Amino acid sequence: MIVRDDMTFPFAEYQRRIDELRGRMQKRLLDAIVISDPENLMYLTDYQTTGYSFFQALVIPLDNEPFMITRKLEESNVYARTWVEITRPYPDTGDAIQMLVESLREFGLNGKHIGYERNSYFFPAYHQDSIHTTFTDGRLLDCFGIVEQGRITKSPVEIEIMRKAAHATEAGMKAGFEACVAGATENEIGAAISAGMFQAGGETPAVMPYVTSGPRTMIGHATWEGRVVQPGEHVFLEVGGCYRRYHTAMMRTVVLGDMTDTFYKAQEKMKLALQRLKEIMRPGLTVSDADNLVRAIITDNDIGGSLITRSGYSIGIAFPPSWDEGYIISLKQGISTVLEEGMTFHIIPWMWGVEGDKTMGISDTLYVTENGCESFFTLDKDFVVKPEYGA
Amino acid sequence: MIVRDDMTFPFAEYQRRIDELRGRMQKRLLDAIVISDPENLMYLTDYQTTGYSFFQALVIPLDNEPFMITRKLEESNVYARTWVEITRPYPDTGDAIQMLVESLREFGLNGKHIGYERNSYFFPAYHQDSIHTTFTDGRLLDCFGIVEQGRITKSPVEIEIMRKAAHATEAGMKAGFEACVAGATENEIGAAISAGMFQAGGETPAVMPYVTSGPRTMIGHATWEGRVVQPGEHVFLEVGGCYRRYHTAMMRTVVLGDMTDTFYKAQEKMKLALQRLKEIMRPGLTVSDADNLVRAIITDNDIGGSLITRSGYSIGIAFPPSWDEGYIISLKQGISTVLEEGMTFHIIPWMWGVEGDKTMGISDTLYVTENGCESFFTLDKDFVVKPEYGA
Repeated sequence: MIVRDDMTFPFAEYQRRIDELRGRMQKRLLDAIVISDPENLMYLTDYQTTGYSFFQALVIPLDNEPFMITRKLEESNVYARTWVEITRPYPDTGDAIQMLVESLREFGLNGKHIGYERNSYFFPAYHQDSIHTTFTDGRLLDCFGIVEQGRITKSPVEIEIMRKAAHATEAGMKAGFEACVAGATENEIGAAISAGMFQAGGETPAVMPYVTSGPRTMIGHATWEGRVVQPGEHVFLEVGGCYRRYHTAMMRTVVLGDMTDTFYKAQEKMKLALQRLKEIMRPGLTVSDADNLVRAIITDNDIGGSLITRSGYSIGIAFPPSWDEGYIISLKQGISTVLEEGMTFHIIPWMWGVEGDKTMGISDTLYVTENGCESFFTLDKDFVVKPEYGA
Repeated sequence: MIVRDDMTFPFAEYQRRIDELRGRMQKRLLDAIVISDPENLMYLTDYQTTGYSFFQALVIPLDNEPFMITRKLEESNVYARTWVEITRPYPDTGDAIQMLVESLREFGLNGKHIGYERNSYFFPAYHQDSIHTTFTDGRLLDCFGIVEQGRITKSPVEIEIMRKAAHATEAGMKAGFEACVAGATENEIGAAISAGMFQAGGETPAVMPYVTSGPRTMIGHATWEGRVVQPGEHVFLEVGGCYRRYHTAMMRTVVLGDMTDTFYKAQEKMKLALQRLKEIMRPGLTVSDADNLVRAIITDNDIGGSLITRSGYSIGIAFPPSWDEGYIISLKQGISTVLEEGMTFHIIPWMWGVEGDKTMGISDTLYVTENGCESFFTLDKDFVVKPEYGA
């Protein structure tokens, strides 16, 4: 490891992460592991690039120096960002898996027990087939999740970095509130949120903001596609700000008109769910219990809204296409995972289909503390009501 | 198929795509195919969502009505956007592959030959394992690329949609030129480009713009991370505008100071490569020949720059994390694919390491016509020189 002081976190943080990972490798009798998931590469080495649809991997032997396989173009990211000393790049006319297998042999890992992330999105099946048919003098074992076991709780320095992401999230959301006016296109609102996030120090998030208005709020995971916002409509906004690949996310709702009884009921339900959860969320509670509390409050309504998804998910390091760490923890029934200090969640007590044709949301990103939990945000949760844009 | 007139393309375009796909299925003796790649789903049905890290697939039987497996939240995208009549959604507490296998049985596809995209990023190994162990009464065969065979050339209506993406690309790049001043942060430049693209009708691209300055131009696939641009430096910009998931991309270079001999030589080399390629690119030329022409011109330089990647790639429908269709065609040696009318390429005669520490680029997105090729852009290719920001 090259000791350097210009990484996202102090060097000791990376040493701790690698040491703990090697402890887990030892327990699982692995001589080395091949890590290909972009979030896990970032977590272990501070490496990042958008070019991860080309194969790349960090090989971590139990006892020797780690080394990295990258596309030639991405090797510069190893030098510019990481503690990694040894790289084995492959050219665009070369074969990534051949380079991986040759490197495993070069560093004496043939004949050994090698873990790899079988379920990694960016270690696709053809590449897995290829390593299985060429690396025949060792044993390949699934170690999917071995790095995520470290990522499940965030250290104090990670919480601090997430505050910078939260600053970008709030700046983007405030710019969005301003831009929500009748006659604007959803694109113009998206432009304002994007500029707001980036000017406030935000980096490119794993997912760009969600902006939908009126009937389009009923389309799951949609964002701006040119629609002009009409007087009297509401606008659904969801913004995930990013800093050094760490994210915090937030939903808010803007009403271009008067606050109706229905809007008020929805707002109060969602605020209540967030408030009650914040009161009880602490180390020791199970994920199922947290989900149950939010789900029960939202489901008990007379305005037609329903919570058709999980009620929250772990959030932290993310690359496109998703800012969530739901594969680490999702808040849904049947999950007995116990909350621990340092876990971070985007809690989403949203309502789909209010009055049959409106979706709205208020959400929060929380971190679990020693005795309770805290929000990353200070922005008011109430719907932003603009009666001057009424129908 | 539900006939409707509110999709991205006329209904006949989707009918043609499905009919041609069924022709290819028949040739390959497949009774049905399971398509899970987000770009391919968009191509066939106009379906899109950012939520594709959750399993989703369109099942196309040779003779019967297609049906779609989605996460419950995403089902709304099927209704809002597509011609698909039958959906089988699964809840967040359910099992996607169980729903897929049950649906295959429900529609009489057990015992049949079923194609699936073995190399699809978002049909990860655990899910592939699961279908192999549960769908035991049929035969599963790899059909990766069967949809891409249709996507390899773009129809006239696709070229028209790509013009709208090009309009967003140019608007973003122009806003970037304005924002490139000494003392600005790379983030502020990124904010300006983003807002420019989106205000001009652009949608969220598969990759956000690349903005690097001075020494950071040497980091592959990096973008803004807070650096303040210094007087006398150059700024590398690469923007991929998006409309209805279709992309066009463009690199440009801004010089905050005087045009030096080196900058001039780099500019002229890159312009020459683009001009010569544009003169000879036409149906019948091989991809290797096109790459060779660009590579030879760029490589023959006395300023230290090198072309360390392929010299271009197919571009069109894209979802994060990459805007390229390089898995369909990349411009590199050894590829004997013959150019055809309707192919679209981002041509990137860029130079890495000019004077040892500068990367710069000028690129173009071209489409192959009946007898030659055309650019999607009209923006001037020369470096943007701002001597007033010299050191």
